Amino acid sequence: MKKIAVLLSGCGVYDGTELHESVLALLEITKSGASYQCFAPNIPQYHVVSHLTGEVQENETRNVLVESARIARGDIKAVDELNIAEFDALVIPGGFGAAKNLCDFAVTEAEYSVEPSVERFISQFASAHKPVGFICISPIMIPKLYGHGVSGTIGSDEATAAAFEQQGGQHHAVSVHDIVVDEKHKVVSTPAYMLANDIVEAHSGISKLVEKVLQMAE
Amino acid sequence: MKKIAVLLSGCGVYDGTELHESVLALLEITKSGASYQCFAPNIPQYHVVSHLTGEVQENETRNVLVESARIARGDIKAVDELNIAEFDALVIPGGFGAAKNLCDFAVTEAEYSVEPSVERFISQFASAHKPVGFICISPIMIPKLYGHGVSGTIGSDEATAAAFEQQGGQHHAVSVHDIVVDEKHKVVSTPAYMLANDIVEAHSGISKLVEKVLQMAE
Repeated sequence: MKKIAVLLSGCGVYDGTELHESVLALLEITKSGASYQCFAPNIPQYHVVSHLTGEVQENETRNVLVESARIARGDIKAVDELNIAEFDALVIPGGFGAAKNLCDFAVTEAEYSVEPSVERFISQFASAHKPVGFICISPIMIPKLYGHGVSGTIGSDEATAAAFEQQGGQHHAVSVHDIVVDEKHKVVSTPAYMLANDIVEAHSGISKLVEKVLQMAE
Repeated sequence: MKKIAVLLSGCGVYDGTELHESVLALLEITKSGASYQCFAPNIPQYHVVSHLTGEVQENETRNVLVESARIARGDIKAVDELNIAEFDALVIPGGFGAAKNLCDFAVTEAEYSVEPSVERFISQFASAHKPVGFICISPIMIPKLYGHGVSGTIGSDEATAAAFEQQGGQHHAVSVHDIVVDEKHKVVSTPAYMLANDIVEAHSGISKLVEKVLQMAE
């Protein structure tokens, strides 16, 4: 049975992992007969956002690993607990947590960097030539992690696509139903809620991404 | 297009709504061509549980409506904003939030009561004879809301089934793949994570529940 790592970034689209995307990824992994283990960095969230009002809760702090555990129903590990030999592939859902906690793209834009423990985690999959699926905004990390010429998509937002290219990536604008595959680097990406109007549209691309990642893990 | 209300109870299995169950319900509603509107009571959570350690965070408080908004991607209403004429049916996912915030069954057991604003909310669907689907532990509220002789399931846990019957309900032990339908009261229930070993098993019963609820709403 294949074992897939899933990297989370909190719990909620505005300050953490996009919940629909992560649950749909877990569903598709399990439906395919593979198992999963959730991971998250043990770091404070960039901030806490009230998802009711959209306002930053200035007096509140939350931990990315602790909040991500809500999606994992308590079964989660810190990124530095990874034993790469146990895993066949990695999937990274989106949400602002991917751009605020896993890297700081949502804060610094062009000059963003990937959080060090997250970079060590994902780089182990890249070095072992194990496939990685990036969903929604999380593909913004692809060029930083894989270097010049790597292909990916963040949907069709021009400013985000330009940032992707500025870091050396080759951006491909695709629909919410599509995936972009870089066979050489074993990297797959899909826009999901960068473009999705509803959960069924998000499901469409995520299903294809998980299927392709599992196929590449053979 | 049918419009389905979804009643949430926080965000995370140990102190709020079970995330997988709620996202799977939203997926199935949307796949069926219906739309949804999420609701939650505007009350403090019974408590906050670290989903990493399982421990209660004594110094922390969170609001059920604010946390539920994470599942709803911000698009949520308080239960007292319901205009019953706009809706065809209601679906209530599980998680401990259903038994700690929507009612207090997890705290008081046999002598539990339904939170007043929640009781007013669900009772409007019952009075209008609009179907309601209860998932996981949320069916524990069925006999309190519908009275003597109503049928439902919480899976096969004997103590919980006994509490269901003590309140006047007729409990039916079923598998995770099954639903129990009370045609007279237009009530549907399924065990989901009361029994599910994984997300695919939870999906199985939830798919059938949503299909039946939508069919009864015709």
